[in-house]
Amino acid sequence: MLSDFEKAKQEDKSKLNQEIKKLRARLMAQQQLLRAGKLPVLVLIEGWSAAGKGSLIKEIISEMDPRFYQVTSPAVIPESESRYPFLYPFASAIPENGQIVFLDSGWMESAVRKKLRLEITREEYKRRIRMVNEFERQLRDGGYLILKIFLHIGREEQFERLKALSESVDTEWRVTKDDLWQHQEYAQFLKTYDDFMEKTNETVPWHILDGKRKKTAVRDALKLLVAKIDKALEKGRYIGEPFEEKFPLVKMPMLKDVDLSPVISDEEYQKELKKLQSRLSELHNVLYRKKIPVILCYEGWDAAGKGGNIRRVAYPLDPRGVDVHPIASPEPHELNRQFLWRFWTRLPRTGHICIFDRTWYGRVMVERLEGFCTEKDWQRAYNEINEFERQLTDWGAVVMKFWIHIDQDTQLARFTDRQNTPEKQWKITDEDWRNRDKWPQYEVAVDEMLRKTSTENAPWYIIESNDKKYARIKVLRLIVKKLEKACEKSFENSMA
Amino acid sequence: MLSDFEKAKQEDKSKLNQEIKKLRARLMAQQQLLRAGKLPVLVLIEGWSAAGKGSLIKEIISEMDPRFYQVTSPAVIPESESRYPFLYPFASAIPENGQIVFLDSGWMESAVRKKLRLEITREEYKRRIRMVNEFERQLRDGGYLILKIFLHIGREEQFERLKALSESVDTEWRVTKDDLWQHQEYAQFLKTYDDFMEKTNETVPWHILDGKRKKTAVRDALKLLVAKIDKALEKGRYIGEPFEEKFPLVKMPMLKDVDLSPVISDEEYQKELKKLQSRLSELHNVLYRKKIPVILCYEGWDAAGKGGNIRRVAYPLDPRGVDVHPIASPEPHELNRQFLWRFWTRLPRTGHICIFDRTWYGRVMVERLEGFCTEKDWQRAYNEINEFERQLTDWGAVVMKFWIHIDQDTQLARFTDRQNTPEKQWKITDEDWRNRDKWPQYEVAVDEMLRKTSTENAPWYIIESNDKKYARIKVLRLIVKKLEKACEKSFENSMA
Repeated sequence: MLSDFEKAKQEDKSKLNQEIKKLRARLMAQQQLLRAGKLPVLVLIEGWSAAGKGSLIKEIISEMDPRFYQVTSPAVIPESESRYPFLYPFASAIPENGQIVFLDSGWMESAVRKKLRLEITREEYKRRIRMVNEFERQLRDGGYLILKIFLHIGREEQFERLKALSESVDTEWRVTKDDLWQHQEYAQFLKTYDDFMEKTNETVPWHILDGKRKKTAVRDALKLLVAKIDKALEKGRYIGEPFEEKFPLVKMPMLKDVDLSPVISDEEYQKELKKLQSRLSELHNVLYRKKIPVILCYEGWDAAGKGGNIRRVAYPLDPRGVDVHPIASPEPHELNRQFLWRFWTRLPRTGHICIFDRTWYGRVMVERLEGFCTEKDWQRAYNEINEFERQLTDWGAVVMKFWIHIDQDTQLARFTDRQNTPEKQWKITDEDWRNRDKWPQYEVAVDEMLRKTSTENAPWYIIESNDKKYARIKVLRLIVKKLEKACEKSFENSMA
Repeated sequence: MLSDFEKAKQEDKSKLNQEIKKLRARLMAQQQLLRAGKLPVLVLIEGWSAAGKGSLIKEIISEMDPRFYQVTSPAVIPESESRYPFLYPFASAIPENGQIVFLDSGWMESAVRKKLRLEITREEYKRRIRMVNEFERQLRDGGYLILKIFLHIGREEQFERLKALSESVDTEWRVTKDDLWQHQEYAQFLKTYDDFMEKTNETVPWHILDGKRKKTAVRDALKLLVAKIDKALEKGRYIGEPFEEKFPLVKMPMLKDVDLSPVISDEEYQKELKKLQSRLSELHNVLYRKKIPVILCYEGWDAAGKGGNIRRVAYPLDPRGVDVHPIASPEPHELNRQFLWRFWTRLPRTGHICIFDRTWYGRVMVERLEGFCTEKDWQRAYNEINEFERQLTDWGAVVMKFWIHIDQDTQLARFTDRQNTPEKQWKITDEDWRNRDKWPQYEVAVDEMLRKTSTENAPWYIIESNDKKYARIKVLRLIVKKLEKACEKSFENSMA
């Protein structure tokens, strides 16, 4: 005979199972609605080693259609990925519209472990918390649903579980040195987890689940997820409000006030070009050794001379350490993700240089003017871009942005020349002429962009390019000067 | 006063410089024509350490538009990439149409070093030579231009160069242990390089250039490249002829002869499902430990039950070790590369499982029937796919291919049900009805595919799916059996 207590327990269990069954069915149906509504969902499961993160995910997904979710474990970041910024593995792993991504531990574990291992300074830890808040807000504002769960177990429970795993041949490999270290430092971890959650609770709140009561945790996780998705399906895709954070800005002139008359003589051009390119070549070696990443961004009017300018900068560089990314219209898999995703995934490794021929600033120029995104989207983008670039410079990157500038007469002359020269005809399309008609609108957008995104850490440089040769020398000179400073500074740091 | 000899030498030098200048200008113009003609070019530069491969590439590209070429160094393959098949880094790095990729050493260096380090057996070295020949032919037949250059220097010259590099603070980091080891083993390397080139000279011939005479090497490399591109531009994109290699095949029945009556009782289904899933779950652990990669391929009629079948297989697997890839129409960046590229880049790491929901067999089904490729292309594909899959099984992967089979009546019933059930309507589109009209043509294509690509190493399994439950159990049983064998075999190997 069962005691009343045991009976009640059994009833609870069967009730729990039924609840879970219902929730799973609902989640499965939601997958199709998410696909139809093109909503992306990111589920972050953090928690103690041996708390059962993997099993929890398995229970959540067990009835789901595996074609429309992914599970990734970015905790296990390969060595080569440590040559990228802190958020790189997570920013690369975000779902496309209509998909769900489960992260089996993510940015929290990464930041907390590095802090406790003393691999990052207290300052850097604080910065990472800021970056995480920025990252989560940007995703949320871009229409992503995010659910953050922390799976908690006590120290004793962790001990029992690690012991049980270690004692079986089939599972002992699952217990790593890191896990044992965490167990030893349980108190430190507890404090730091608490601290991290407290400081990243605002935009997307944390949910702490009890890892000891497995079934209840599954039910609760499913409940949270299903409710979140239901709410989103009802309300439709969220579009974040623009807001302004104060970044230290460099004051920029209006484009109409830029004097485009500077020229350079052929003789001086040849002399300077040789000198600067040879210096740049030397500097590339130093950058490589010091592992400083460099990101050079080109924007400018059609026919302003971006291509030729880029060629003169790339020429002296070791081709194995430089990538040039021509940025065209996004492809479907790019359009289906937050707008910075296709740039995150193209970042250089430490010590490498990358050159963007057109950039993320398309958001506040062509996408703004052609209506490829909402007004809120491009208005929010100034701040989002400033944050993105600050993350890059905080990582140690040199970020320089060139606006290659000409006047309308010069553009007309070059368009006409392209039209009339067979070898150059590929460079001119109907779209160029259409864009030319929108010069005044573009000028407004560019002026606003220069004003709002020329931060001290990643400033804009307006490059007078009515004389292309003058423009090339000016860019090279700016780059050489900046890189010399970066190499010195990093030298000082390494001596400190 | 200059001696006659010195004068002649000077004249030669200035003549050489002029030639190089002309060739560079031509190459720059060709870049645009390549873009217009959508021709991809792959330039492989192999050669001795310190032979000047990097400098040679730099000289070749110096006037080129950096937006339309890339230089990659796959010799420096990060550790994590060693968990992929031999050709993975190269197959991933192929250019898209209109682009040029320079490989600063590639498959030759990779194979030769591993052989001399005794990291691979003699058998495996031979296999790699075969794989390289297959890879080069597939690219050529797919319209790729390939130029292969070996940059040669003698032992003494190598000594001088390594010494010079070591003596300067700025360059000593360029001399690696591997370079010194190669110098020590110069004779062995010479023999193996010769052997490798001899055996990979047929489809795409090697060109050996003298690394000691730098300018001449630059001129010759440019000449080869320019001539190759000119010829291709004149002739247009090459489309390879189909040909048949004999693969050991498993005899397959015609679809019309397949008995679709098998069913399973609900009771037996539940019992078997549980048993097989639990066994599969155990096996996943073993596969992970033994680092065996598994590739499961699903093809079948619309509404045959692929999705539900995949779900039952994925369910018991550790989600961190499995990826499901739904394969839709290729995106532009995929269409612009050889047709297997988008599958190469989706391969699992060792110890991981991936499931393809539709596969590379689209080439000989939808692409064939809809005319998305030429007749030669799909006829060639049988052989190309057999080679691709043999490379996967040679790597150690388990490759299984399931044709989920139903009859026309069953399809009609399921289509109608989908049409009439609101939650299922997303599953049915006009295209499904159009495809249904082409059933007879598809059946011819599928029969030919099954007959020509059911190799012993990667066989097709026809899965009777009029009863979906029967189909699920059959697939699970086949997988469990095959994986058990793979785990045993690998165990035997590790004991040998």
